[in-house]
Amino acid sequence: MAGFFFSLLNYKTEKYVIAENKKIGILFRVYQVAVLAYVIGWVFVMRKGYQEKEEAIQSSVITKLKGVALTNSSDSGPRLWGAEDYVIPPNGEQVFFVVTNFVETPNQRLGLCAEVRVIPVWIKTGVCVNSTGTCEIQGWCPVGKSHRPPEPLLSGAENFTIYIKNFIRFPKFEFSKSNVLETSNDSYLKGCTYEKVEDPYCPIFRLGDLVDWTGNDFQEMAVKGGSVAILIEWNCDLDRDSSHCNPEYSFTRLDSNINNSITSGYNFRYARYYKDATGEDFRTLYKVYGIRFDIMINGRAGRFNIIPTVIAVGSGFALLGAGAFACDMILLYMMNTSSFYRERKFEIINFK
Amino acid sequence: MAGFFFSLLNYKTEKYVIAENKKIGILFRVYQVAVLAYVIGWVFVMRKGYQEKEEAIQSSVITKLKGVALTNSSDSGPRLWGAEDYVIPPNGEQVFFVVTNFVETPNQRLGLCAEVRVIPVWIKTGVCVNSTGTCEIQGWCPVGKSHRPPEPLLSGAENFTIYIKNFIRFPKFEFSKSNVLETSNDSYLKGCTYEKVEDPYCPIFRLGDLVDWTGNDFQEMAVKGGSVAILIEWNCDLDRDSSHCNPEYSFTRLDSNINNSITSGYNFRYARYYKDATGEDFRTLYKVYGIRFDIMINGRAGRFNIIPTVIAVGSGFALLGAGAFACDMILLYMMNTSSFYRERKFEIINFK
Amino acid sequence: MAGFFFSLLNYKTEKYVIAENKKIGILFRVYQVAVLAYVIGWVFVMRKGYQEKEEAIQSSVITKLKGVALTNSSDSGPRLWGAEDYVIPPNGEQVFFVVTNFVETPNQRLGLCAEVRVIPVWIKTGVCVNSTGTCEIQGWCPVGKSHRPPEPLLSGAENFTIYIKNFIRFPKFEFSKSNVLETSNDSYLKGCTYEKVEDPYCPIFRLGDLVDWTGNDFQEMAVKGGSVAILIEWNCDLDRDSSHCNPEYSFTRLDSNINNSITSGYNFRYARYYKDATGEDFRTLYKVYGIRFDIMINGRAGRFNIIPTVIAVGSGFALLGAGAFACDMILLYMMNTSSFYRERKFEIINFK
Repeated sequence: MAGFFFSLLNYKTEKYVIAENKKIGILFRVYQVAVLAYVIGWVFVMRKGYQEKEEAIQSSVITKLKGVALTNSSDSGPRLWGAEDYVIPPNGEQVFFVVTNFVETPNQRLGLCAEVRVIPVWIKTGVCVNSTGTCEIQGWCPVGKSHRPPEPLLSGAENFTIYIKNFIRFPKFEFSKSNVLETSNDSYLKGCTYEKVEDPYCPIFRLGDLVDWTGNDFQEMAVKGGSVAILIEWNCDLDRDSSHCNPEYSFTRLDSNINNSITSGYNFRYARYYKDATGEDFRTLYKVYGIRFDIMINGRAGRFNIIPTVIAVGSGFALLGAGAFACDMILLYMMNTSSFYRERKFEIINFK
Repeated sequence: MAGFFFSLLNYKTEKYVIAENKKIGILFRVYQVAVLAYVIGWVFVMRKGYQEKEEAIQSSVITKLKGVALTNSSDSGPRLWGAEDYVIPPNGEQVFFVVTNFVETPNQRLGLCAEVRVIPVWIKTGVCVNSTGTCEIQGWCPVGKSHRPPEPLLSGAENFTIYIKNFIRFPKFEFSKSNVLETSNDSYLKGCTYEKVEDPYCPIFRLGDLVDWTGNDFQEMAVKGGSVAILIEWNCDLDRDSSHCNPEYSFTRLDSNINNSITSGYNFRYARYYKDATGEDFRTLYKVYGIRFDIMINGRAGRFNIIPTVIAVGSGFALLGAGAFACDMILLYMMNTSSFYRERKFEIINFK
Repeated sequence: MAGFFFSLLNYKTEKYVIAENKKIGILFRVYQVAVLAYVIGWVFVMRKGYQEKEEAIQSSVITKLKGVALTNSSDSGPRLWGAEDYVIPPNGEQVFFVVTNFVETPNQRLGLCAEVRVIPVWIKTGVCVNSTGTCEIQGWCPVGKSHRPPEPLLSGAENFTIYIKNFIRFPKFEFSKSNVLETSNDSYLKGCTYEKVEDPYCPIFRLGDLVDWTGNDFQEMAVKGGSVAILIEWNCDLDRDSSHCNPEYSFTRLDSNINNSITSGYNFRYARYYKDATGEDFRTLYKVYGIRFDIMINGRAGRFNIIPTVIAVGSGFALLGAGAFACDMILLYMMNTSSFYRERKFEIINFK
């Protein structure tokens, strides 16, 4: 027993045979170098395989729009649009809508009115009263006309600005950061406008620019509306200083297949309700066209961790073994010296 | 030194001993086949272990409801509900609420009124004025009565339809797609309704069907309200053509533990404010019951990548080594021919 | 050929040489024990490396606030705030805003009015009419004054409560759970308040406590507003019973860099529109200050799976091979007995 434990302290190692075959030797060395290059070059340097990755980013977004627009349509008279009117909802959410065009139907009252042809069939709740094809419908009268102004009424929306505050957190690494740099002073934030090259960390965006960057024309999109994604990407190498962990912005139009009229454009209806002196309800119906902004946050962080390092190194080593196996197969079965090699590589233990 | 570099070109390989022991031999072959079957069958074919995975899906959802309902309660008279009224918020969000039942308290004015018993204690801000147990409260009078109509007032909500547009993106692979198929023409989208087997890619859903598919009855759920999740699942194998990357829909009720009255049902209050001719405020309070729809997007994409392939293959190889180790242990310590085998497997180098 | 298949049943195993060198022997044993300790202790026990992980948690959040506050400012007279007024939006969303302070500008009408100095330049749409520096602006008059009350008007908001219902799902494991425990009875949920130690599973939170736990003073934050994250973390070991999978709550202030006045505080404007007897529009503008709550869900689940287990074990084994390689290098090249060892370890096959 003592002998057994004593023998544990001996170092056991594989006995090797050296095959003085230059072809196989070179082949195997080339393979070893390739595996080494893959492990060091690709896995470690390029893909940072020694890092534990976190992709489940947490984020909180606050938005604030600034700018006013004056509209003066023949129907509804002059009207001033502030952020409290053109941003829906007004409370600074991650997904919000900016009105750029609208159709107003004022003073609707519940009652019976003649059907207007452009209205889809689902509003028809009344019965047809004559044979001319027009029917009476019960609903809010007069029925909203659907003639969209050919030019955006809020064409000035191009100059509105969005201030985006994005707070992110990688819960696995307990790392958090904001896109508003700590170093930014007030005056910088009051004056700057985001620009990919010159001002990449300014969190204030001009609406016209945003649409431009998606490859669209603002005034054109403003007529029927549209849907724009503002992508904020955080690629953070947490082995470096946190000041290198910065957001990158990109911009895409989401309703882009123009040839499909159902999916392009963006509009919805809402109503403001009033009561007259007799207590009867009436309302103004707005059909608003505009741009829906969807701020999408995406991130990846990595930090050195022993487990992925071991897995990367270990699987590389195992791969070397696979190469040795292939070289052995060649030597053992595919060369004319195979039987000679086989005799030397293998030593037969004959259990009698 | 030249000899050293020269020797680098020799192929060094382990010397093997062949143990002519059929039991161990078969055991080890069976193990090898099992490992191979695991690596090829399970890791590669079933789990696509050669793919890099992306689970951090980005998505944007736009919803649009259609349908009208006419209510005629004794309290509030006839009323027509359009999408601008029954969808809250009306701007096409991912999480939205559809009114199916409501209690209206019109013409509330600020003042003092006698406490109504059904109102929870937290509204009581006044003082008790008599010993009968009723107290005076300061607030909006008359206090809203809480008698929920036993039948849903908007029972027609069953036939409303939701159009869901879901745009997704896998940032790691720079792949994006929409649930509205490019091939779909306008007329298809105007006429179709989602159906699991016949119309699995139509993005238009009937409300009644949605609730049915969660295993609930629409009219029953419409009374007290409820919370329904529409799950959209994208399982994409990006080694195949993108036309194989399609959404799968499923439907669950989220407030399902019926026996717990606090967690089932869904309602909230909102108010519409008016001013009378004298400039005094009054309001109509609505307590709305209805179905909250929560569209939850979930996705996974995979694409061939060398790193996970190497890790899968490498760890399989390493596992073979573990089997050889186990077989060796048996031969070395657990058989009566062990000492004989030991002598042959090990060659002692005696450092004098 | 038969001989070949027969020979497949022989067990081939590496031939070892035993180097009776205690130093290297001990070194290698220590290394083996270290690798074993790492694999078992760190990878398996601490990091649960035998589990497949899921980080893409799906979640649905419903919130409901309770409490009333009475304000009595000199400008706007007495007013009662219920949840339908102070929660924006009122429909129980995951991100919501609670009014704690406000400035009301009643009876604004469209027209021309003299510029008020405190209003930022972007509202100035009119022209300057005199040389005193004041300009006329076209807009809603009177212009909203920006004097924020120095004390929060809704100081009672401290005692409001939030009921949070969070439903989560790990799609890969088809596991779902809610933060409202199944075992909780109605009376418990009606009476409890969350408290880290005593009531960690009660889903009802007092607003004042929430702000306290972020290290801030409620009354102070209520003046200018702020942004608070409620983090719900689900760390679930699905190899154990699901009753061990419970949420953990934590609380952070998101707009915390106090020295940067632009990023701290939270407010926005909204308006209520009215029509007078002549049909002319007028409105009441509210600038509301308050606390934005952002409920952020984060989760990780793990369940035993063969693939990560094999990868963890396999890479550990491969690491052992790396240690043997290092020991060999020492024996082969760095000791005075090296040439002796080399002769024994390697057997030269001389292909003539």
